[in-house]
Parts: sequence; structure tokens; C-alpha cells
Amino acid sequence: MALIVHKYGGTSVGSVERIKNVARRIAKWQRAGHRLVVVVSAMSGETNRLIALAKEIQPNPDPRELDVVASTGEQVTIGLLAMALKEIGLKAKSYTGPQVHVLTDSAFTKARIIDIDEKKIRADLDSGHVVVVAGFQGVDEHGNITTLGRGGSDTSAVALAAALRADECLIYTDVDGVYTTDPRIVPEARRLHTITFEEMLEMASLGSKVLQIRSVEFAGKYKVPLRVLSSLTDPDMPLAEEANSGTLITFEEDTKMEKAVISGVAFSRDEAKITLTRVPDRPGIAYQILGQIAEANIDVDMIVQNISVDGMTDFSFTVHRNEYAKAMDVLAAKVKTHVGAKEIVGDPKIAKVSVVGIGMRSHVGIASLMFRTLAEEGINIQMISTSEIKISVVVEDKYLELAVRALHKAFGLEQETA
Amino acid sequence: MALIVHKYGGTSVGSVERIKNVARRIAKWQRAGHRLVVVVSAMSGETNRLIALAKEIQPNPDPRELDVVASTGEQVTIGLLAMALKEIGLKAKSYTGPQVHVLTDSAFTKARIIDIDEKKIRADLDSGHVVVVAGFQGVDEHGNITTLGRGGSDTSAVALAAALRADECLIYTDVDGVYTTDPRIVPEARRLHTITFEEMLEMASLGSKVLQIRSVEFAGKYKVPLRVLSSLTDPDMPLAEEANSGTLITFEEDTKMEKAVISGVAFSRDEAKITLTRVPDRPGIAYQILGQIAEANIDVDMIVQNISVDGMTDFSFTVHRNEYAKAMDVLAAKVKTHVGAKEIVGDPKIAKVSVVGIGMRSHVGIASLMFRTLAEEGINIQMISTSEIKISVVVEDKYLELAVRALHKAFGLEQETA
Repeated sequence: MALIVHKYGGTSVGSVERIKNVARRIAKWQRAGHRLVVVVSAMSGETNRLIALAKEIQPNPDPRELDVVASTGEQVTIGLLAMALKEIGLKAKSYTGPQVHVLTDSAFTKARIIDIDEKKIRADLDSGHVVVVAGFQGVDEHGNITTLGRGGSDTSAVALAAALRADECLIYTDVDGVYTTDPRIVPEARRLHTITFEEMLEMASLGSKVLQIRSVEFAGKYKVPLRVLSSLTDPDMPLAEEANSGTLITFEEDTKMEKAVISGVAFSRDEAKITLTRVPDRPGIAYQILGQIAEANIDVDMIVQNISVDGMTDFSFTVHRNEYAKAMDVLAAKVKTHVGAKEIVGDPKIAKVSVVGIGMRSHVGIASLMFRTLAEEGINIQMISTSEIKISVVVEDKYLELAVRALHKAFGLEQETA
Repeated sequence: MALIVHKYGGTSVGSVERIKNVARRIAKWQRAGHRLVVVVSAMSGETNRLIALAKEIQPNPDPRELDVVASTGEQVTIGLLAMALKEIGLKAKSYTGPQVHVLTDSAFTKARIIDIDEKKIRADLDSGHVVVVAGFQGVDEHGNITTLGRGGSDTSAVALAAALRADECLIYTDVDGVYTTDPRIVPEARRLHTITFEEMLEMASLGSKVLQIRSVEFAGKYKVPLRVLSSLTDPDMPLAEEANSGTLITFEEDTKMEKAVISGVAFSRDEAKITLTRVPDRPGIAYQILGQIAEANIDVDMIVQNISVDGMTDFSFTVHRNEYAKAMDVLAAKVKTHVGAKEIVGDPKIAKVSVVGIGMRSHVGIASLMFRTLAEEGINIQMISTSEIKISVVVEDKYLELAVRALHKAFGLEQETA
């Protein structure tokens, strides 16, 4: 008898029919003797509807009040799913984030989970209930409602699994697992049976939208076994089969010896590049630039600074495309003169393409194969950044698909490896 | 500088445009130096939409979960209104019922308010905020979300006004006050400038849907001055004029000497009549019958029992028409044999018509004028029940409009009294 957390996204609970299917699926797991905690998102389209309503009132909605409005989407789903479970004879109880004290910081619209009080949930599990918890939402120390940002329900699920020391956290979604790259771009893309946390982290952060990155960080930190699988299969399919479907995100590299060096090709079209040219190369410059950006609550992704010439250097970084205008404003107003940059050059028409693989650590030549492949396609590389298990390049955004297809092929990802 | 509670119903906040109008109206009151607490309902149609969704999942929705779902309607409105207030430069903050500890009992879907913690609200008022609170909802001692039933936002507003010892509670609605009867049935119906709490209580309980009855009880109990007025007027109308519009519900009978004996004709089409015939007339019978009805959480309105003949009597009462089938089932299953009734006879096709007036206390002849008027129209009276300030009769429902018009005329309600 295991304690299992299920998470169902917006598409999986997008209609009354689908909510009923989710209930049948949960019933199957409970009948097999498992204790179930279920985290749900808002019905698909609902969060967008609420945000649009808010923007009609206030083009730039107050973040605290936006969270009050946006968090209602998940609250509707928890009630409906609990009803659907009761309707088929299960004991069930729903909770909002605040009701189970999903304590977060006060960064409205992108809050981070600090703690969860799992006592109520344990008591309900002990008395045979399926516990349904609203994803995406929490409460700060002052009792304000907060939300975790897009995809936050994944994080809610993993945080609950960690707090409850669950045996597994199953993320049911509208895709059937993690692929070597986006099948819409590369039809030969292949589903991975397993992927390591580190790889998944890079894949997620690089734009493979299967899982929210923070949920993967959380799962890695608290060693929560995580599986991504489809919610669109027959809810009555055999449990043993379902339990082994999708992609398992593992802690071990054990089978990696036989595997490809690269697990996947990730990409993101949502970024913009900003460069400050001819910045004096002295201590504290990076902080003076990025400190102001962080102050404005803008996340920075890649950061590149090359060696200096004549004591001057160029400093580049990327931000989410939505925050490009804001970042440019901050730099113009608070940074440019202060750090003595010559000019600020920005480009929102870029894309980032990365190859990811834990095997990279022990293999040379990955970078050179990547760069050669792009060169052969005539794609100019604008920025390069590397980590132990990934290499990312920034290219002009019109080359995105071409780059992804060429790299997927060059690294042999279309072939199943034993 | 007064502390004033405003309440806006579903129609008043039924669109983005109307919410913006509400914000302008509130701004006007704040500019005049008042401290404002604003209670809002769900946008019109929203509660029905949520309940319909729930019924698609579970034809008879679990009450706890229904409250989780239904309470989201008000939560959306508070966020939107707070945004609208900020957008025009006011300081504003929204709270759900649970956030300001609107403590209720655990009778889901029809909970009653026990207490409100007004500390947070006072602190926000002190720092110049308009405080926006979700009506209709609360939290029980176990932290479960509860709702107060249809019209519950009126009660929320009055309860807040009582807790804060507000100077006045203004109920903004889609009618411009309390009328002598429903103008849709009697075009000559007249708006009352004032009405006493006792009269309003009878009018409300008898189906004049301007205010929820519990809100009037609350206001009477805690001596909260209450005014019903229109939210559809120009939000920029002069404040002095607005503050004196609508109908004021007063504690005093002071001006009653010059007034008509009867204040209004109320009616209800939502009731059903049930009679247990030939019940033994012994102590405890009424309790044995109604105890089971109360147990099933069914509210009983009129109760009539006549003198006994041969130790047997007929026992009649009315319930809400929605609960007629349930009440009949309870009686058949748990009461009939037990109390030894001959049969249970029910009729959902009835209507109740009442004349209400505090002046009735000191005037004889009201009942005889009422009965004569109905007799002259050929309307048979099925049941009669009286209180100090009202007389109610049950008639076949097809006679409802005829009875209301005849009584409104007979008691001279179409003429303005000095």
C-alpha cells in the first residue's frame, strides 16, 4: 500500500466528462490499495479567462488582487473532482492551498512554497479519504492568497509529495511522456522511458513544457520519484500497465552506459537578448547590472561575458521575451550611465537551442559535433553557454526548427537505444 | 466621518462596466470623508453557472464541495473590484470570508454567521484603504468553506456592519427601494420612504425579495440602520441625494400615526402545503411531526392546527416548494405510521398572500377587511395564520395576482400618505 500523489493539469480536467474520467482513474488506484492525494489545475481556459477579465478592469492588474481572482479556477476544480469521486462511491475531501497551509513567500503571481502542513491530509488519508488539493495556490504569512505562476500546479504536487514522503508523484498530462525533442518539429522524436533529474531540469528550463522547472528542482531536492504520463488513456486500463507508462524521472544514472550521450534537444522561443557594450571590466559590474534587473523581479537566463579588451568588455544576458521591454527600461533608467556602458543593444527575435545529456560529462566532442552541425546548416551562433550536462546556443529565431531537426538527427536521437 | 458598509448584489457587479461604476460610486463616498467597507456578490449568473456545473457532476451535489465551488463567484468579484478601485487611485484590499474569519456553523449551503473578526478590516481602514469583502461565504470552526445560502451577501453586509458598529449599511440593488407590493403585479405599487424592521421582516419573509430575511433579523438585532437603494443610478449623482434615496429601514414607529395601517402586501409562490389528517391530538404530536422535518434540514413556514374533534385533529404546514418532495418522503417514511395519521395530503400549487403593517396592532377590522375583499373576488382561503403585524392566507396559486391587486386597492396603498 503506497502513498501516491496524482496531478492532473488543465486539459485533463477540462470538461465534466474528463473530470469523471479522472475520478474513475483514481478509483482504480484506490481499489488497488493505494492512498491517494490528488492535485488539480484549473479547467483549461479558465485561468486565461480570469486573467483577461482582470485586465479588462486594470490593464496591469494589481498582483495581490490578481492572485485572489486567478486562484478561483483551481478551487472550482477541487470541488467538482471531490463530487465526482463521491458520486462513484469514494470518500473524498477537497482543500484549497490556504486550507492545508501551503505557506509561500509574498511574491504574488510567482510565489514560492516554503512549507506545507500535512496533518489534515494525513488524518483524512487515515480515514480512507481521497484528498483533493488545489494546485497553483498558497497563502503567505499574513494570510494573503498567493499563486505560484504558470505551471505551478506541478510544483504543488511535488511539494505535497515531498511533505507527505509519498512513494511516487504521477504527473498526468496531455502528452504521454518526455520526448527527445518536440514531436511537432521533429516527427522522429522519441519518448524517453527514463531521464535523470539533472537532464529533466535542463530540458524543463530550456522550454520543454512538460513539467514546470521548479517542480523538477523540488523533486530532485526532496528525492521525490516523478513520472510524467498521459491522462488521455482509457481510465480503466490495467493499473500495472499505467504505472509503467510515460517517462520516469530517476535519480540514478545506472543504465546510462548503454544509452546515448545526449538525451534530448530542448529549445525556447520565449527569450530576448540584451547586450551592454563597452562596459568597464571592473569588480562589481555584473552585480550593478543584474542587481537592478533582479530588483525589478525579472528573471535572467543565460549570462555571457567575454574576456576584456582595453579594460572594456561586452556583457550579455537573456530574459523572457515578455520582460524584454521592462528590462530595457530598467537598464536605460538605472544602469547605463551608472556603469558607463557605451550602448544597450537588444534583440527579441532570438531562439535558444540546447543539447542535454548526463552522458556528456564523460564524452568529449559533443560541443564540436553541435557547432559543426549548425555550421553545416549555415546557422550563425550568437551566444554560447554551457553546463556540465548541456550546451546552449542562441540563434536567430527563424533558424529554430532547422537547428532542432539537424541536431536531433546528428545526435542519433531518432533511434531507440537498448 | 462615518464608517459605512456598502453592499452590491450580482446585477450591480454583473459586468466589467458595472464594476467600474461601483468603484466610482465608492470613490465619491470616500472623497466625502467616509470609511468604506464594501461587500459584493458574485457577478450575476455566475453562481447559477457554478451550481449547474456541479450538478452535471453530481445531480445532488455534496454540500461541502458545493460550497467550495460556489464561493469562488464572490472571490472573483472582490479581486476585480479592488483592482477597479486601485485603477482610479484609491487604496483598496480584498478579503474572502475565511480571510476575515466570518465564522459560521457547519450547515453547508445555508450556514449562519456566528462571529466576525474585524481587526484586519479596522487596521486597513485606519491606513486609508477601502476594504472589499466577499459576501455569501464564511468558514466553520474546522476551516471548511461555507456559504450562507441565496441572498446571503445581504447578511454578510449587515453582520459586518454590526461587527464594525457601522453608522449605516447601504444595500445597493437593482430596485430603488421597498414597495407596497410587487410593481410587476400592481402597477400602482408605491415606494416606501421608511419601513420598520418588524414590517420589513414580514415583507422579506413573505417573499418580497429585496432583502434576505436573515439580514433583516440581524440588522434588527444589532440595531444596524439599513437602507435599500438603487445601484443603477448615475454613480456621480450628488452624495446628499443618494444618501437619502431608496427605503430606510427604521427602528422607530414615530411617524406611524399619520400613516396607513398596512404598509404592504407581500406574497410568495414558492410554497407547498402539507396536511396530516386525523392525527391523535396528544402532547408531543407536533414535535414528532416537525422534529423529523427539521432533522431533514427542511424549513417550515406556516403551521396550522385546529381544535380537535373526537381527540383527532388535522395538522398542516407549508414548506418551500423545492423541498416539498423531500418533506413528503420524510413524512411517509418516518412519521405517518409513528404518529398514526390517516393520510398525508399535499398540494404544491398554492400561494401565500399577506398584509403587513405595524399599525395593525392598534386597529381592529384589518382581518375582516382582508377576508371580505378576498370573498368578494371569489377566492377561497385554505389556511390562515396571523402574527402581531401581519395576516397571511394560503390560496390556490392561480388566484395570486388577483388577490394581491384586490388587497392593495382595498387597503388604499396606491395613495401616498402624508
